[in-house]
Amino acid sequence: MRVNLFVVGFVLLAFTSCQEEQKGTSESQSEQSSEGIATNDALTSWNSTPSLDRITSFVESVTDSTSESFVIEEDRIAVFDNDGTLWAEQPMYFQLYFAIDQVKAMAADHPEWNEQEPMKSVLAGDLESLKSQGLEGILKLVMTTHAGMSEMEFNQTVKQWADTATHPVTNLRYIDMVYQPMLELLDYFRANGIKTYIVSGGGVSFMRAWAPEVYGIPKEQIIGTTLKTEFVSDEEGQRVMRQPTIDFIDDKEGKPENINRIIGQKPIIAFGNSDGDLAMLQYTASRQGLSLPAYIHHTDSLREYAYDREGHVGVLIQGMEEAKSKGWLVVDMAKDWNVIYPRK
Amino acid sequence: MRVNLFVVGFVLLAFTSCQEEQKGTSESQSEQSSEGIATNDALTSWNSTPSLDRITSFVESVTDSTSESFVIEEDRIAVFDNDGTLWAEQPMYFQLYFAIDQVKAMAADHPEWNEQEPMKSVLAGDLESLKSQGLEGILKLVMTTHAGMSEMEFNQTVKQWADTATHPVTNLRYIDMVYQPMLELLDYFRANGIKTYIVSGGGVSFMRAWAPEVYGIPKEQIIGTTLKTEFVSDEEGQRVMRQPTIDFIDDKEGKPENINRIIGQKPIIAFGNSDGDLAMLQYTASRQGLSLPAYIHHTDSLREYAYDREGHVGVLIQGMEEAKSKGWLVVDMAKDWNVIYPRK
Repeated sequence: MRVNLFVVGFVLLAFTSCQEEQKGTSESQSEQSSEGIATNDALTSWNSTPSLDRITSFVESVTDSTSESFVIEEDRIAVFDNDGTLWAEQPMYFQLYFAIDQVKAMAADHPEWNEQEPMKSVLAGDLESLKSQGLEGILKLVMTTHAGMSEMEFNQTVKQWADTATHPVTNLRYIDMVYQPMLELLDYFRANGIKTYIVSGGGVSFMRAWAPEVYGIPKEQIIGTTLKTEFVSDEEGQRVMRQPTIDFIDDKEGKPENINRIIGQKPIIAFGNSDGDLAMLQYTASRQGLSLPAYIHHTDSLREYAYDREGHVGVLIQGMEEAKSKGWLVVDMAKDWNVIYPRK
Repeated sequence: MRVNLFVVGFVLLAFTSCQEEQKGTSESQSEQSSEGIATNDALTSWNSTPSLDRITSFVESVTDSTSESFVIEEDRIAVFDNDGTLWAEQPMYFQLYFAIDQVKAMAADHPEWNEQEPMKSVLAGDLESLKSQGLEGILKLVMTTHAGMSEMEFNQTVKQWADTATHPVTNLRYIDMVYQPMLELLDYFRANGIKTYIVSGGGVSFMRAWAPEVYGIPKEQIIGTTLKTEFVSDEEGQRVMRQPTIDFIDDKEGKPENINRIIGQKPIIAFGNSDGDLAMLQYTASRQGLSLPAYIHHTDSLREYAYDREGHVGVLIQGMEEAKSKGWLVVDMAKDWNVIYPRK
């Protein structure tokens, strides 16, 4: 659950929300050229900058069967971090808002929580107190709200939350705080035979409840942090129960390890936004042949949030140094994107 | 590695190999009808028995958008055990033959093995002695041959082995001891928009080296037992190293747990052949709506091997009882299949 990051996520960053400044269109359908290769016509939320050129040149090379950089379709794997890469992550990871909302929703059945930390602080709306309880408090909060039920029940709970829950600052639904240029990029890649995967520190079951519809990425192409589970078969039927124990944290070195375990080959494209994605980008860059490791750089304090070295969510220090020294693509949200969130 | 089963796999079963008795064609291409729905014309290695009817009726129902049992394409997941379901597994798991062959291939660089069990017994060709060393010996054999190298190196090693290694009894290559009717079934399912997955107790990296080509199943749709791995980034580059520790055994309850973790939803079809597949079949049967849990029953002592309750590889006792009581499909290899292995 990236609990160490969750904790420090409480150090809220300053921000300005300027929805009305968004420009451009919300066109998210990819378009096929007459030759069946998708053009970049659908990338309308991207400005005509070198970043866009670099992305489209890469795709043209790997899909051109006469090019030395051609990649057969089976090997065209693209991986995307989620928090801060496909949707926003400030002032704290959205999954932690879910956990807090869940404590509130479940409180009526748990009068004892009024005396039990960290639920007591959450119910009192005292996030500072929650923060002071450190890793232990966050772990307890996550396990209380994410474990002890079947996968199907948890999926339903998250689905209902995602349908309605809104961000405390923007008042947008969390699932409407996805990045329109990235939606277009996902479509563009897929139209070129590139299989899109999420590889995120977020919980895999949390993401599967809403991400397939929002991103067009099927459940089986979503990789994330997992809890241990137990298959139960009894008179009530068969189900997979979620246990209050971390199984695998899909962050840092865990990302390439999970890509190897679940996908079984190196991606050709990897997008991330923090040092937690560095190992995944290095792994992608190490493939034989052309690759596109890329960072999304949060430079837009007006339309979204500006952060990298400071703060505690999405910290990007070592990754940016390596990106510069290796010449990786760094997308500048302020300059490269003419819109942030989809227009309603 | 299903090490407990590996051990007892040494109790060799009697068998008769009668390749020349194989009938039928090796047609493995699926055919599309004019409406884009694949017909069962391609299932030529299947006899016209109730088993075939049941499979094709199921597929017609779940793909007919006017049927109450219609399943949208995103939910059409089929899972297959490998050993004994897609390829043979007698007289012992083929992956164990790989381990033995590897010890022999690596022996020149390891003179110390002449004094170290279980390698000493393997090099002396004394499988009875290896067997007497029980689980500990097998684990050491597997870890010696499967860990300590990068995933890429291991993949190359298995690939080279699979290209040439032959079965001690049939003298066929192991990769030619796949079941022709199952190859046709995989094609038939895929032609009907059903995504085919392997979910096997075998090692995932072992299978990924040859199964994509042999079965037409991509690496990322192969799920199996895993070793722990470590992402290494140093002056030599980036790689995932295989550690000599079991990460997850994809057998019994581990199968539905892994299906939930990696695929994220219940399959509509599951084929297995042993009690190790029962939990996966139960999980599949528990989905809301139509499902096809199925056992391959090894009834053909002439053309392959006949086994179920006895022996120690592919034991099928509890699973067969449940299949009978629940009315699951049980494929009778002797009666339902007119050919076992692909014709050369």
